[in-house]
Amino acid sequence: MGAEAAAAPFLAGRAAGQAALILASASPARAALLAQAGVPCATEPAAIDEEEVKAALRAAGADAAKVAETLAELKAQRVSSRHPGAVVIGADQVLECGGVWFDKPADSSHARNDLLALRGKSHDLVTCVCVVRDGQRLWHHTSRATLHMREFSGTFLESYLTAVGAEALESVGAYQLEGLGAQLFARIDGDYFSILGLPLLPLLDFLRGHGMVMP
Amino acid sequence: MGAEAAAAPFLAGRAAGQAALILASASPARAALLAQAGVPCATEPAAIDEEEVKAALRAAGADAAKVAETLAELKAQRVSSRHPGAVVIGADQVLECGGVWFDKPADSSHARNDLLALRGKSHDLVTCVCVVRDGQRLWHHTSRATLHMREFSGTFLESYLTAVGAEALESVGAYQLEGLGAQLFARIDGDYFSILGLPLLPLLDFLRGHGMVMP
Repeated sequence: MGAEAAAAPFLAGRAAGQAALILASASPARAALLAQAGVPCATEPAAIDEEEVKAALRAAGADAAKVAETLAELKAQRVSSRHPGAVVIGADQVLECGGVWFDKPADSSHARNDLLALRGKSHDLVTCVCVVRDGQRLWHHTSRATLHMREFSGTFLESYLTAVGAEALESVGAYQLEGLGAQLFARIDGDYFSILGLPLLPLLDFLRGHGMVMP
Repeated sequence: MGAEAAAAPFLAGRAAGQAALILASASPARAALLAQAGVPCATEPAAIDEEEVKAALRAAGADAAKVAETLAELKAQRVSSRHPGAVVIGADQVLECGGVWFDKPADSSHARNDLLALRGKSHDLVTCVCVVRDGQRLWHHTSRATLHMREFSGTFLESYLTAVGAEALESVGAYQLEGLGAQLFARIDGDYFSILGLPLLPLLDFLRGHGMVMP
């Protein structure tokens, strides 16, 4: 049975017409995580200039968690302002390696450089999810995972970039762990759902506590 | 790009015609994990009476890890005997809760009873992967994860069983974490790939070291 067919019974709130649930994200991975868990959401990208916000926060001395939290809330607030009464989920993820933050690579050449910089090292993924309704932040949760990238060969890197193509540009670090990205890693410590972009279990727990998902 | 289209460059061994790679498993989840990571395998179920082997080992005082290791190797050996020269991967998983082992539920009623027994408690998933060639065990790896099931309602349980249908019978514990099963849990500690049935990163590392996957 597909996730969407199975999903309806678990969305307590919407069935009762209480509130719309909106994911303020353009990320197909985040929407898929929720849908597969039985909580399909409307999605609406917040259209924020993330790099500009990051640069400003960096200049102000913010750490990676602060940036992820700020961006997650900013996305949710932006979409909330357009949808009175809706419960809006925002999320953001920051990749940090040796004090350096990595953005989504702009092109294949940047993806190659990012992977060469991460090769043979550990990096952290800091992931925040935030829930906003009518401009009020109701809740947020931040999760940190540590990923150990192996010493892959140059030949492997070129094969990898060719195989993943434009997918490399969709994620910070140029990898998707649910696909060929798994081949980049020696070890992973942390919550898998958070690594994919959304701390799913804490979010479900929050939604349950607020009548949006069946307890 | 689909995983299979992207996969060929990563299977170093097969491209050179060195050895066939076979997954001794009927589990679609295990085959999917390997295919998504760029390592598509032929699959061939070992057709072992797992419950009988488990019962015998239990009577002999074996612990959960010993059972998972024995069954993983037994599956690989069985398929290896039919395919001289092939590299055969076997895997097994044992669910243990308070000293009790859980098998795949026989029907929906058993699935309900299992979930009621696991509700509100922590349980361990012990997962073993083993590689055999020509009757020789080349390598094995065992991983343990701890999953904390939440205190879901009776209404939730019935909705869940209806929604997942026959899928509940495909896994020990009657859940699939990559689907609606995520709704059962409060917290998960351990490797996600192992929870899905295969310690993927250690296996890829072994295959790389033996020329079966590009380093």
